[in-house]
Amino acid sequence: MQVALLGGTGDIGEGLALRLARDTDHEVVVGSRETEKAADAAAAYEATLADHGVETTVGAAENPEAAAGADIVVLAVPAYHLADTVEAVADDLSGVLVSPAVGLQGDEAGLHYNPPGVGSVTALAAQAAPDGVPVVGAYHNLAAGRLGDLDADLDWDVPVVADDADAKATVVDLTDEMAGLRALDAGPLANATEVESLTPLLINLAANNEGLHDLGAKFQ
Amino acid sequence: MQVALLGGTGDIGEGLALRLARDTDHEVVVGSRETEKAADAAAAYEATLADHGVETTVGAAENPEAAAGADIVVLAVPAYHLADTVEAVADDLSGVLVSPAVGLQGDEAGLHYNPPGVGSVTALAAQAAPDGVPVVGAYHNLAAGRLGDLDADLDWDVPVVADDADAKATVVDLTDEMAGLRALDAGPLANATEVESLTPLLINLAANNEGLHDLGAKFQ
Repeated sequence: MQVALLGGTGDIGEGLALRLARDTDHEVVVGSRETEKAADAAAAYEATLADHGVETTVGAAENPEAAAGADIVVLAVPAYHLADTVEAVADDLSGVLVSPAVGLQGDEAGLHYNPPGVGSVTALAAQAAPDGVPVVGAYHNLAAGRLGDLDADLDWDVPVVADDADAKATVVDLTDEMAGLRALDAGPLANATEVESLTPLLINLAANNEGLHDLGAKFQ
Repeated sequence: MQVALLGGTGDIGEGLALRLARDTDHEVVVGSRETEKAADAAAAYEATLADHGVETTVGAAENPEAAAGADIVVLAVPAYHLADTVEAVADDLSGVLVSPAVGLQGDEAGLHYNPPGVGSVTALAAQAAPDGVPVVGAYHNLAAGRLGDLDADLDWDVPVVADDADAKATVVDLTDEMAGLRALDAGPLANATEVESLTPLLINLAANNEGLHDLGAKFQ
């Protein structure tokens, strides 16, 4: 399969690119609004992978070109760029769209979940997606710092939501191919709110407990 | 210490009563709106404990009597009974008040977090509590079925929120005394929303994944 990471120059994109390139045989393409930024990131990821003994090629392209022909397109952009990013690639989409973004808001107590009016960022992605393009919510709860550190072993669960069973299965399978990640079915897309809400809790726990940082969750 | 479980005849009260009585030296008192219901539950818990080789006494009383003199008072009642329950014992409270309740709402997709207007059920407890009584949010994410099964080993984290540092430390210590539970500081009471939101996610994951049931979370 071909996996495009739109906004793949950011920290969650970097982590997914490195682990997909290391742990799977899929073709990984970093997308960005600027070709040069994508190319620079891809070269840096290739260098990191080579440092870890993995000689592989990471593709790079402008977002629309990266999305075209990809079986899975991950919207690795901040929530406030999501609708724009989907719009920019709408004519080129033929695969499954994956939304990992979460809306967060901080105050003196900590971080809080701040969903858009439609209830979740994943629902926003579904609203923005062209007809017929299935949207899957996943990767909301992955701590980017540890995800992007190939020396760090993961032992995390990845709740996945979607209304399209085939699209959900595709993302579940892709996730399970990455070492230390276990995909779990969290139900239909309408359950994305509960998945996205976990992210600020993870950050609040890391902020308040010495020795804990870059937290994920295991459900048991 | 004396720990009172108001509404201790319910499933979360049962689980906490059994594990506190088995794993700690604290005096456990089951509270209920009716003395007889409390006494019946306490007798049943003593029998279960005896079956597991633990000969101990579980106290029983009406809620106000259970609350009086208790160092920790757990509001093990449904969210919609919380304000009434606090009001009924307000004159008798001198210890720390612990709020484990979560507001949930179901639809065809799954369970969703349904907080009261003040933002969380824990905040509602704080609003209802008399001046000077510290409120701690904890135990929101414990699956009652497994908690109440003394044959089941737990390996769960318990996020704890509070504004009063001493009260929080008291509940953290109590929690850590129960086998298989690790208390984690989730910050001030204003972060209770993020803690309570985890409960519907746990239930949705259990509902959608074969072989998973009565889920808790471990943050790592």
